[in-house]
Amino acid sequence: MTTDKLHIKRLAILGVGLIGGSLARALRRAGVCETIVGYGRNEDNLRTAQALGVIDSYAMQPAAVVRDADMIVLATPLSTTARLLQQMQTAIIPTATLTDVGSAKGSVVKACTDTLTPEQLRRFVPGHPIAGTEKSGVEASFAELYEDHLAILTPLPQQDAGHLQRVTRMWEATGARVVTMTIEHHDQILAATSHLPHMLAYALVDCLAGMQTRDEIFRYAAGGFTDFTRIASSNPRMWADICMANRDNLISVLELFDTHIRDIKHAIASGNGDALLAIFSRAKNSRDEFIRNKLENGKRKVESSE
Amino acid sequence: MTTDKLHIKRLAILGVGLIGGSLARALRRAGVCETIVGYGRNEDNLRTAQALGVIDSYAMQPAAVVRDADMIVLATPLSTTARLLQQMQTAIIPTATLTDVGSAKGSVVKACTDTLTPEQLRRFVPGHPIAGTEKSGVEASFAELYEDHLAILTPLPQQDAGHLQRVTRMWEATGARVVTMTIEHHDQILAATSHLPHMLAYALVDCLAGMQTRDEIFRYAAGGFTDFTRIASSNPRMWADICMANRDNLISVLELFDTHIRDIKHAIASGNGDALLAIFSRAKNSRDEFIRNKLENGKRKVESSE
Repeated sequence: MTTDKLHIKRLAILGVGLIGGSLARALRRAGVCETIVGYGRNEDNLRTAQALGVIDSYAMQPAAVVRDADMIVLATPLSTTARLLQQMQTAIIPTATLTDVGSAKGSVVKACTDTLTPEQLRRFVPGHPIAGTEKSGVEASFAELYEDHLAILTPLPQQDAGHLQRVTRMWEATGARVVTMTIEHHDQILAATSHLPHMLAYALVDCLAGMQTRDEIFRYAAGGFTDFTRIASSNPRMWADICMANRDNLISVLELFDTHIRDIKHAIASGNGDALLAIFSRAKNSRDEFIRNKLENGKRKVESSE
Repeated sequence: MTTDKLHIKRLAILGVGLIGGSLARALRRAGVCETIVGYGRNEDNLRTAQALGVIDSYAMQPAAVVRDADMIVLATPLSTTARLLQQMQTAIIPTATLTDVGSAKGSVVKACTDTLTPEQLRRFVPGHPIAGTEKSGVEASFAELYEDHLAILTPLPQQDAGHLQRVTRMWEATGARVVTMTIEHHDQILAATSHLPHMLAYALVDCLAGMQTRDEIFRYAAGGFTDFTRIASSNPRMWADICMANRDNLISVLELFDTHIRDIKHAIASGNGDALLAIFSRAKNSRDEFIRNKLENGKRKVESSE
């Protein structure tokens, strides 16, 4: 491996949807790829991807796509990881870098450990770009998706430094900033910041949709509701997989959340306005601080690029 | 009362914040007001409102502000309604229309029934514009806030038709569409569409902010989290009051929500991916339908105005 400028001769994207498609577009735009090949289960989606120029060609067998690829990216729902690795494992060339984009990393690493050879495992760099929209499919993909977003890598202890470097370069080429952390830490943090909010949004919409007054409820919902429930339009299959993959951490944060919503309910039921005011003020201060830091970071970045 | 074009000689706004300030700006822009006077407890905010031209003058006593006003709008937090009505009641002129903007209507009507004369009560039209942002104070107000939004009126059985008409005209002058419904129905619907999501957003931010990893959690939060928690930056005092004012309905929807989040938790804990997929798919379909209808309505409106 070399630390020279990133060059990908043949990029294999398994799962050419919002995430995989946007990565392909971003790397094509950055001029670091010669050829991009796609795999997926939905041939219509792959044809669209080809017609849009997101991929150059596709195949319906994982092994056919990874053959000769020097960068292999898994971007399918988490429950498919083990099966895909089995199907493609013998076709992976000895110089190929492997990575994925899954929202939970423990289950991916387990599938890799069960399937890949120790030598292949050293070349598999678990990754997760912190970006997305509520839309799905290649038509929703765009080259700018990762710009100024974080891409988290969770290197294995036995990771090959060159391949880690290569995946780092790949995300940097999309405009993302790369950070590394342990698998366990990633899965705990993401359970709180991403997986829990998705559960709340799905539960809320399902709750309201089941009410007798559902038509009126949706009629009288305002902008706050639209924003709040945006993530409930996310891909259900992908999210069911994430829940299964990050089960223990998600159960923990759901239980922690439950103690907070119970405190609020108790304060309302007992008419304790002061307790509510204290909770809401604390939450508002935290959220306002989060937004201030976000803006500060954006500002610093603009200043440093001037 | 007349059904002629709306003309307000002297508009009294009690509470010149985001909602009251935006109403003043919108009515001024529509050219339907001669003079706008403001009341509030924070003199700095009132001075700013005057400097910005949102109000012409202000006073620190409710009675002084409503004297000679032919349109009186209560736009302060709900817990202040009864006290304000007591302080201003004898200064209200016999031709004045009264209304409010509170997010829960039962408690406002109770305060009115306890305080106003039967004749004054006939002129009080409970109202609630379904619009807002997470910001507070007159500096956050803008004339366009109510354009294409709904304003709900919950007329009393003994309502004077002329004053109801006048409040309807007032909201139409801001660009809002007016609908009417019963107080009970309003408070049930709003508990579900607005009050419950605010509780979830406050509880989520408070939950994450209390975690040991809070700095990292906020660092790795993406766009979905920002949107999801936007409403947790709302005015805590206002929301504590809304919870107290709509207590029974809010407890009911919190309990209903709890059954849905428990179903999700149970499916995760028992590894039932199919059950999760069913819940998430149902929620996604409902949310997508809600957005389609919203866009359809927007499109119809554009077409009918062509």
